Amino acid sequence: MRILVLGGDGYLGWPTALHLSRAGHAVGVVDNFARRQYDYEMGVDSLVPIKHLQHRVRTWKEVSGHTVDAYVGDLTDGPFVKRTIEAFRPDAIVHFAEQRSAPYSMIDQSHAVYTQVNNVVGTLNLLYAIAEVDPSIHLVKLGTMGEYGTPNIDIEEGFIEITHRGRTDVLPYPKQPGSFYHLSKVHDSHNIMFACRIWGLRSTDLNQGIVYGQETPETVLHPDLATRFDYDAVFGTVLNRFCVQAVVGHPITVYGQGGQTRGMLDIRDTLACVELACMNPPDVGEFRVFNQFTESFSVQQLAEMVVDSYPGRAEIVHLDDPRVEKEDHYYRAAHTKLLDLGLVPHLLNSSTLSSLLAVVDHHRDRVDANAFRPTVQWRRTASVLPTSGLLHDGANAQAEEAAREG
Amino acid sequence: MRILVLGGDGYLGWPTALHLSRAGHAVGVVDNFARRQYDYEMGVDSLVPIKHLQHRVRTWKEVSGHTVDAYVGDLTDGPFVKRTIEAFRPDAIVHFAEQRSAPYSMIDQSHAVYTQVNNVVGTLNLLYAIAEVDPSIHLVKLGTMGEYGTPNIDIEEGFIEITHRGRTDVLPYPKQPGSFYHLSKVHDSHNIMFACRIWGLRSTDLNQGIVYGQETPETVLHPDLATRFDYDAVFGTVLNRFCVQAVVGHPITVYGQGGQTRGMLDIRDTLACVELACMNPPDVGEFRVFNQFTESFSVQQLAEMVVDSYPGRAEIVHLDDPRVEKEDHYYRAAHTKLLDLGLVPHLLNSSTLSSLLAVVDHHRDRVDANAFRPTVQWRRTASVLPTSGLLHDGANAQAEEAAREG
Repeated sequence: MRILVLGGDGYLGWPTALHLSRAGHAVGVVDNFARRQYDYEMGVDSLVPIKHLQHRVRTWKEVSGHTVDAYVGDLTDGPFVKRTIEAFRPDAIVHFAEQRSAPYSMIDQSHAVYTQVNNVVGTLNLLYAIAEVDPSIHLVKLGTMGEYGTPNIDIEEGFIEITHRGRTDVLPYPKQPGSFYHLSKVHDSHNIMFACRIWGLRSTDLNQGIVYGQETPETVLHPDLATRFDYDAVFGTVLNRFCVQAVVGHPITVYGQGGQTRGMLDIRDTLACVELACMNPPDVGEFRVFNQFTESFSVQQLAEMVVDSYPGRAEIVHLDDPRVEKEDHYYRAAHTKLLDLGLVPHLLNSSTLSSLLAVVDHHRDRVDANAFRPTVQWRRTASVLPTSGLLHDGANAQAEEAAREG
Repeated sequence: MRILVLGGDGYLGWPTALHLSRAGHAVGVVDNFARRQYDYEMGVDSLVPIKHLQHRVRTWKEVSGHTVDAYVGDLTDGPFVKRTIEAFRPDAIVHFAEQRSAPYSMIDQSHAVYTQVNNVVGTLNLLYAIAEVDPSIHLVKLGTMGEYGTPNIDIEEGFIEITHRGRTDVLPYPKQPGSFYHLSKVHDSHNIMFACRIWGLRSTDLNQGIVYGQETPETVLHPDLATRFDYDAVFGTVLNRFCVQAVVGHPITVYGQGGQTRGMLDIRDTLACVELACMNPPDVGEFRVFNQFTESFSVQQLAEMVVDSYPGRAEIVHLDDPRVEKEDHYYRAAHTKLLDLGLVPHLLNSSTLSSLLAVVDHHRDRVDANAFRPTVQWRRTASVLPTSGLLHDGANAQAEEAAREG
């Protein structure tokens, strides 16, 4: 199978490309290196050093004998998207190529606009290019469990049967996303569903939980194949950040009460899920949604698991929640469709955590503790950046005030 | 009350501004004249001649003694939006300023991207500006009944109570919009709901039906106060177009079977609804949805009503539906909230239709029958424009082929 991985230089895109390549697929990657650019803006770096994409691809060729084609360009450039799909002619396109940080989208007006334009236009261009080049190409789109929010009823996989005033229909599951980033994914989902309906495209929307972990069976084959690992308050995800905090002796920072419950999964399961989706395409015209996570945990539970697994001493502190979210809520979400296709999950346990803590420990000298502080405030319209203490270009007087207030 | 009308030079924005001004409110209008620019692109004109905004405002001052402040600029220009709101300091902002044609959004990739970026970014900028200047400003946003699509259950006003596996919650009503334009309004609704939640903004989302009519009590006070009237296949709406077709002896063009049923309202009711929304603001932090229409009709019913009301002979023809939509479906939508606030609807009857036909007859020499032909095809990714027969810049080989076939 020919598979094009968009965002193939990123945290998940790169190991996914390697996994698919090793599994025998012809793989291409597309990236504009926006994620690396955000590091300059934030003043942070991946905890684990990463090589340039061109070097990674060469290393993979040496290690595995497999070629991965690299295309450099931006999905908001419509002609580039079409040209690349015409050149590679994929059977499936795996689309990781979006701005994927909720706090980044909430920094200020310009970051909110950037996030929604970047994500929505990129996906629109992709839909048009697929429809024009070959409508049978299967679009595997990374969405997020955060699209659903935290309703007081069970979350289903994309659609829900509703009986109302004596009539019944199966309708798209109502969405209550919690940031301008999460909203951009909801917009994408609506656009993709429509394109499937009018043009007969086929797509799988993977509503992914929060991913943890860094090593995969392919990336460990050579140090130059490592994928990035983020622990800062903007791009770092919760469990990864907690592990870094424990290792450097920083308090584990739980936002609010910590009752916020989310679906989670191991990075190796991301790769498996994406491959399962590719190998089992939906019908022509079908828009399909899989909830891609394996277990649910509250933030407090995750913090306690890190404390229990870390061989040293780690303490938990509770910060005012910078987000607007329920800190104690009902959460039960279906996630059977990928299991039905054969997913065998890696569950979170002390052994998984120990491996993750070992990766962090190996790079502990690279940790910048300034990056832990959550400075992006959902209730404000202009926040300062986490590490610099300096104002962002787009920030205004309100941000200065916020900075003074601390 | 100080009310700023965005898109105040348009079909509904202009008469709404006059209505609010006459009712004693301090009114400002904002426009970038995008709607007039689309006329150049389409090669069509408003059936009723319209004057420049500056001339309209002067005429209104002469006729009524009331001043309407005019601001020229683009909502996608964030600093302009903030500056204008700071200058006018409205209590309410009525937001008509979006690309509002479904066929226009479906012309090709560049029109789809333009529509979604223009509408979504304009509204995002507005949300940020309101939050930063004065969060108590009430945003009255024009949405569309087309956001709901045609589910097989009753449509409610924005939210629906769902009982699922023994638990109950009130959730946003699931949306199944039918064009990239309608999708842009769904994206807006999600963004606005979120801004109300995190910043305590207050907003009314008016999910408006299809508007018919041209004259209002204010626009008839002077010919130079007339609002535009569109009958072409891209910007013209169904009943207005049918009236023009009848008057010039062109067959009334029903798409498909004509069983497509939609909520409709008289232009005068639009003005009344907007004023009712402004005068009865929601609570701080509340996102409120009103379904703004007064009656539902199928397209076939509308065509037959025009045939019955037109004093001459009019015939109905059925064209292949250029859209992807159900031509026969269940349709029942709640619309009680505006009635509860005191709306007294103008219903569609032979007298209303006769007035509309008289307006059309007065300007019959300005009709260009080429503009009736529906050339934008939902199933294609690149369509030709209605009047020119020439290819649009963005159109490609597929469009040439479509033109030859079509």
